[in-house]
Formats: sequence, structure tokens, C-alpha cells
Amino acid sequence: MKLATVRVNGSTRAVRLDGDRLVDLGAADLGEFLAQDDWAARAAAADPATTYPAEGADFAPVVPQPSKVVCVGLNYRNHIQEMGRDLPQHPTLFAKFADCLVGATDDIARPEETAEFDWEVELAVVIGKPVRRARGAEAEAAIAGFTVLNDITCRDWQFRTREWLQGKMWDSSTPVGPYLVTPDELPGGVRPELDVTLSVDGTVMQQDNTGDLLFDPVALVEYVSTVVRLNPGDLIATGTPGGVGHARTPKLYLTGGERVVTEIQGIGRLDNTVVKDGGA
Amino acid sequence: MKLATVRVNGSTRAVRLDGDRLVDLGAADLGEFLAQDDWAARAAAADPATTYPAEGADFAPVVPQPSKVVCVGLNYRNHIQEMGRDLPQHPTLFAKFADCLVGATDDIARPEETAEFDWEVELAVVIGKPVRRARGAEAEAAIAGFTVLNDITCRDWQFRTREWLQGKMWDSSTPVGPYLVTPDELPGGVRPELDVTLSVDGTVMQQDNTGDLLFDPVALVEYVSTVVRLNPGDLIATGTPGGVGHARTPKLYLTGGERVVTEIQGIGRLDNTVVKDGGA
Repeated sequence: MKLATVRVNGSTRAVRLDGDRLVDLGAADLGEFLAQDDWAARAAAADPATTYPAEGADFAPVVPQPSKVVCVGLNYRNHIQEMGRDLPQHPTLFAKFADCLVGATDDIARPEETAEFDWEVELAVVIGKPVRRARGAEAEAAIAGFTVLNDITCRDWQFRTREWLQGKMWDSSTPVGPYLVTPDELPGGVRPELDVTLSVDGTVMQQDNTGDLLFDPVALVEYVSTVVRLNPGDLIATGTPGGVGHARTPKLYLTGGERVVTEIQGIGRLDNTVVKDGGA
Repeated sequence: MKLATVRVNGSTRAVRLDGDRLVDLGAADLGEFLAQDDWAARAAAADPATTYPAEGADFAPVVPQPSKVVCVGLNYRNHIQEMGRDLPQHPTLFAKFADCLVGATDDIARPEETAEFDWEVELAVVIGKPVRRARGAEAEAAIAGFTVLNDITCRDWQFRTREWLQGKMWDSSTPVGPYLVTPDELPGGVRPELDVTLSVDGTVMQQDNTGDLLFDPVALVEYVSTVVRLNPGDLIATGTPGGVGHARTPKLYLTGGERVVTEIQGIGRLDNTVVKDGGA
């Protein structure tokens, strides 16, 4: 199944994609919908009485108010090795907040306070069950599905201090969506093997495959849920491959007006324009 | 005014301390209460029709579900200088999530997965108005008040990777409360000058004054709100002074069973017992 949160008549609705229609799931958003124990059965059985056209849908962040967004640092094997680094023993984790998120075709707010605004295509896990210290089958079953996230980053702020958070938590900067796709629809299931790409104004900047992840989605659910409970709708962004602007020669940053397309095979694409935020 | 969120009959209520009684404010918790534009007037005018005894009150986290908890690294001037470091130009920020928080007299969950469980007394700012890029008087007015937070940390997990988050976001580890005290009741107002202390089983481990903060509460609201909107109920923990267990010779950690008392003059005290969490 492909599920989403769309904006309809000034509020939001949880929906399931059914051909060229979006079937209303009877909840305000996917966060609320996934909080129901039997959400998968409900989604499959949803009555197509109320539907909206899929074409031209206005996507909200796939989960608008996750209780947590946990992001993973360097996690693509090829990229780690090409940088000459050793494979890490533990995932590196940092946070974003719900207020950082925007929808699949929303503008990305580029703050006037940065001179180094960069992109990062990422596969994101959407949690579907409350879990703590989940292992094996329990961790697999906690994965509702996957979505696309662009972990937009202000590099100058990321490296102002030794903690990355202030480069990562900019308001309305991080597109996520359009769809949550359940693992049964993806090659590799809960350890999906999907091509990821990111382009800026039509030039491909990042290209890799999620099969190369060092810490796969199940391992990440195990690791993060060791530390803190995961709730339905929580997001884990699994890290980005090579090709970010900051690592290029010469370095390349988003200055405003660019169209950034972030795509994962079988899930969908984010198509966002970079617009100025703040200033006179 | 002193405001709190207390547990009553299986749910929570926002209250104002009035002598030895807690006056019900007509909201489920302080997060919901502070989201009202006129919360200060409502709190002052609250009808004492429904009250609860203050003695023996069961405090929830002062805001149970903040949309964000932003924490500041090293921020006490004396402590930075005694460590021989230069004063930083920018505050170092990291995150916690709502699921990390516990109430003022709740147990602190010590996970079996750590061998280095440590304490950090902190003054925390509670936000009372939605703000973005607030400066000066607007930043001052966005401060609803102050509370006490013990930024409990698993040092081994904090230093596993280059990001601190995984040492900081343990479930049910971080007491916050008991009261939000409005700035008008505190010496120094929105830049309060208050003694902070933390003791373990009666031995004072940390002792300083919030007047020594390098980045004061107003500066922190300005800085954080530059990056991301702040919402009513959001928390900013302002950093800890010297005296943590990890920096002692020999190092000293909480192993379970200890009573940790975290107190800030004029605000109140957290009084928590460290209990084992996880394991067989």
C-alpha cells in the first residue's frame, strides 16, 4: 500500500493511493492513523466512499507531527570507504523536530543566515507500532513503511560547534513524503534495495542504492529503540550517500530558486523549489 | 506565579500554586494552557473552585509533551575557564525528546546498557509565546518562566560517536519541574541569578549560580528561534556547571538506588531515585 497525508479544504487527511484516486482513511493524518493497532487492516479495507484525485494532490509531510525524528550520519558503505574512513561500530545519531518538515512539493525555506545550504537524499523509516528495545521480528514488524526525506543542512551552522543539530533543525527546510510505502511492495522488504537519486536543476548530484546501507532499517530500529521508545509515526532518516554539495570540488550550495528533485525507486519523488526565508 | 502539571485521578491537570493549594487552571497540562494567548491573565484570574492539596502532589513533567527540548552544552563561564578552554562564540545545541522526561519526584530510569550514568543540574526556560527570529523585548516576552531540569546522561553512549544525542535521549531519564516560576518572581527576572545545586545521597556535587551563564536565557531564545520556531511549552535547558561525575577524580557514576536532589533557589527541587531499567 501507498499511504499519505494530503491537504484538503484547509485541513489534512490520511489517504491510501488507489489507482488515480486517494481514498480517505478516516483520520486527520498518518500519525493519527498509524496510532491505531489495526491500521494495516483498516487501510486495506478502507471504504472508497470519500476520495480525492491523486493528480495535483497537495502533500503534507507524510507524518506532520512525529514525536521524534532521529537521523543517522554517514551510513553508505561505498561512501565511507571512498572517503578512506573505517566502518563505524555504532550509528551516529542526531535529531530534527516536526517544525523542520515540509511536504513533497512545498518550498524549501533557505534562511538568509546561511551561506552553505546543502542537500542529502535519504530513505526514511516510518514507525508503525510502539516499541522499546525491539529485536529481530519485533523490530521488523515495527516498520510501517518507507518514505523519502531530503535532510537539508546549513553546513556553516552544522560546523559552528561540535554538535550538528543547529545545522540540521532549520524551520520548514526538510521535505518528507510523498508516500509511505509498505515493505511488502518493495524489493528487499524491510531491508529494501532501492535506487536513490537527487538532482539540482536537472543535474544528478547523488545516486546510490539503499542495499548499501551499513546499518539497515531493522538494525536502526533495534538501536534507536534501545535508547528511547519509538511511537507510531516516528521517523528514522537512514543517512545519505556521496555527492553532497559540501564535499564537491569546488563546493556547491543552494542559493535560492533551484529545483531539487529527490527520488527513491518504488516510493516516489520530492520536487521542491528553494526559496529565501527571512531578511528584509 | 508558580504553575505546574500534576497527576490527578489518572490524568493530568494544569495548576497554579496558591498557598498550600493547587488551583485547577481548566487545562489538561501546561503545554495546552500556555498555548492560549492570554494564559498569564487566565492563570492570575483562575477561579479557586477546584483545588488540590499541594502537599504530596504527584508532579508530571512541567510540560509533558513539548514540541521540542533544546539543550545547551557547556555554558557556565567559571567552569569553562577552570577547564582551560576559550569562551565559545556560539552555544552548542543538542536535543532531547518528550519521551525522555519524567516528573519531579518520579524515578529516573537507569538503563542496563550503560556503565556511566551521570547527572547535570540545569535551569530550563519554558516558552510562553510562538516566536521565530525573536530579538530583544520579543525574546524576553517569549519566556513564560523557568524550571529545573536534570540532564541525565549516559557518558559511554554520549561518546560512542561524535554526536552526543544517543547519550542524552534515554527514555524516562530526565526529571523536569516541579514548577514553572514566572520571571517577575525571580531575582534578575528573565536573566535570573539563582543558586543551583545537585546532591547525590546528601553529598553536594554541583553548586553554582545562573548569573554565571555565558549565553543567558534571552540570548538563547534569540539564537534558537533564529533556527526554528519556538512554540508555547518548548523547553531550552541552559547547560550545567562543574561537578558532574564524569569529570571527577576518580570518576563517579550512578549505579542504582541513589537519591538525586536537584534544586534551584526560588523554583523548587527535583527529588528522584535512580532505578534499574531493562535487563532480566
